[in-house]
Amino acid sequence: MRVASYLVDGNPAWGLVTADGAGLIDATGQFPTLKAALAAGGLGKVAGALAGRPADRALDSVAFLPVVPDPDKILCVGLNYDDHRKEGNHPEQKHPTFFVRFANSQIGHRRPMVKPRISDMFDWEAELAVVIGKAGRHIPAERALEHVAGYAPYNDGSVRDWQRHTTQFTPGKNFPGTGGFGPWMSSPDEIADLQAVTVEARLNGEVMQHAAVSDMIFPIPALIAYASTFTELVPGDVIATGTPGGVGSRRTPPVWMKPGDVVEIEIGGVGTLVNEVVAE
Amino acid sequence: MRVASYLVDGNPAWGLVTADGAGLIDATGQFPTLKAALAAGGLGKVAGALAGRPADRALDSVAFLPVVPDPDKILCVGLNYDDHRKEGNHPEQKHPTFFVRFANSQIGHRRPMVKPRISDMFDWEAELAVVIGKAGRHIPAERALEHVAGYAPYNDGSVRDWQRHTTQFTPGKNFPGTGGFGPWMSSPDEIADLQAVTVEARLNGEVMQHAAVSDMIFPIPALIAYASTFTELVPGDVIATGTPGGVGSRRTPPVWMKPGDVVEIEIGGVGTLVNEVVAE
Repeated sequence: MRVASYLVDGNPAWGLVTADGAGLIDATGQFPTLKAALAAGGLGKVAGALAGRPADRALDSVAFLPVVPDPDKILCVGLNYDDHRKEGNHPEQKHPTFFVRFANSQIGHRRPMVKPRISDMFDWEAELAVVIGKAGRHIPAERALEHVAGYAPYNDGSVRDWQRHTTQFTPGKNFPGTGGFGPWMSSPDEIADLQAVTVEARLNGEVMQHAAVSDMIFPIPALIAYASTFTELVPGDVIATGTPGGVGSRRTPPVWMKPGDVVEIEIGGVGTLVNEVVAE
Repeated sequence: MRVASYLVDGNPAWGLVTADGAGLIDATGQFPTLKAALAAGGLGKVAGALAGRPADRALDSVAFLPVVPDPDKILCVGLNYDDHRKEGNHPEQKHPTFFVRFANSQIGHRRPMVKPRISDMFDWEAELAVVIGKAGRHIPAERALEHVAGYAPYNDGSVRDWQRHTTQFTPGKNFPGTGGFGPWMSSPDEIADLQAVTVEARLNGEVMQHAAVSDMIFPIPALIAYASTFTELVPGDVIATGTPGGVGSRRTPPVWMKPGDVVEIEIGGVGTLVNEVVAE
């Protein structure tokens, strides 16, 4: 099952993507939001009730919202691929590095990605996002994947000078319109081999990052186990699992996103998030 | 005006503290939460309608919630007093250091403060919390205080080993039951001289931290201006403005909070937050 959030006549809606990938079957009548469906443990039931129905609208006709527009928390992982760790000259990590994004920094598929007027150092970060489906604290790694509702492309757009103002990444990771999340999430049963899933960024068609989930330093179950030690994970929470080597700021010379650029984040077997960069 | 959030028969409520400090006048019939009242710009109207009414309940009889139980964001400032910066051997800062707390890490006045079972390095941090009353982005410092609805005591309880696992403070600042916030917020008109307001922590009655707002490296208007550059501030948002020198981890030998300890955070002219430490 693939699940998206989008606007219908300006109102938030969500639904299932049809098998042919061309349409959306509205599920808003069942639960007001995807997060509410997850919180009620109702996503499977919705899928059962709506599967096979004709599309209510064409996928090309909607304005996408972030897959989860209103998560309780967005935990982002830094330095989770060795080539990205090395390109930034960071030492080896004993623990995953978690920073935080606010929900109001997110945008959906095909929505403009906003380069802040205060900086020209606007960078992409291709990531696999995990959407939590079941609440938990002190989750053991061997049971962590039971808490996952789906996987989605994420672009952890970063304002590098503001990220490096101090030791804490918060400012550079929270400018409005910088966190791309979509077009949809795919449920775990859609993915034959999670370790083989690829994470790729393309800037104006050119491949800038490419890696596989198996390249992560801290595997997804370890991230969930660690995060759930210090906070309760709840349905709709998002974990952006880190970005591979190849970001713009570490290139020689650096490559920055400019208005008019098109950035694509493809998660193999899940989908491709497309955003055009605009000026604030 | 002093405003508190609390439980009535297990349901979230909020209201005004009576002039004698002994009672609460419920305002939940006007707006469901303090955040909703702030978002509607309705706090002044509520205060006008309810001022002088008799108390609906005794202040000593309620279970307090965090002043804002459901903020959209909690921005915490690190290293904002020179003595705290120096005790940690941190270099001088050109920009304020912002990290993030999740709402589910907060507790109200007199509620138990939870020492995680995974750590014995549980520390206090006395702070003045600013509650945002009016939304804004790119707020100039000279107009920043117009966006403040109130000031409250905050205990930014910190799990030091988890705070220092990586460069990012997130894990050590988000364990459930570690962020004390209360008993109430005082509106700006209650404070004659903001610069002279004192920030003090006491552990089992002994003064551990004591400073004044005038000791801050980045004054409150500068914090609001900087934060509103990278995110839109909205009503109910909380900025915990940093802690003075004297935390437990920098003492010789270090002092850690243990179950049974009572920690008090007093903000001069505002009030005193009291929490007893319990084991997870």
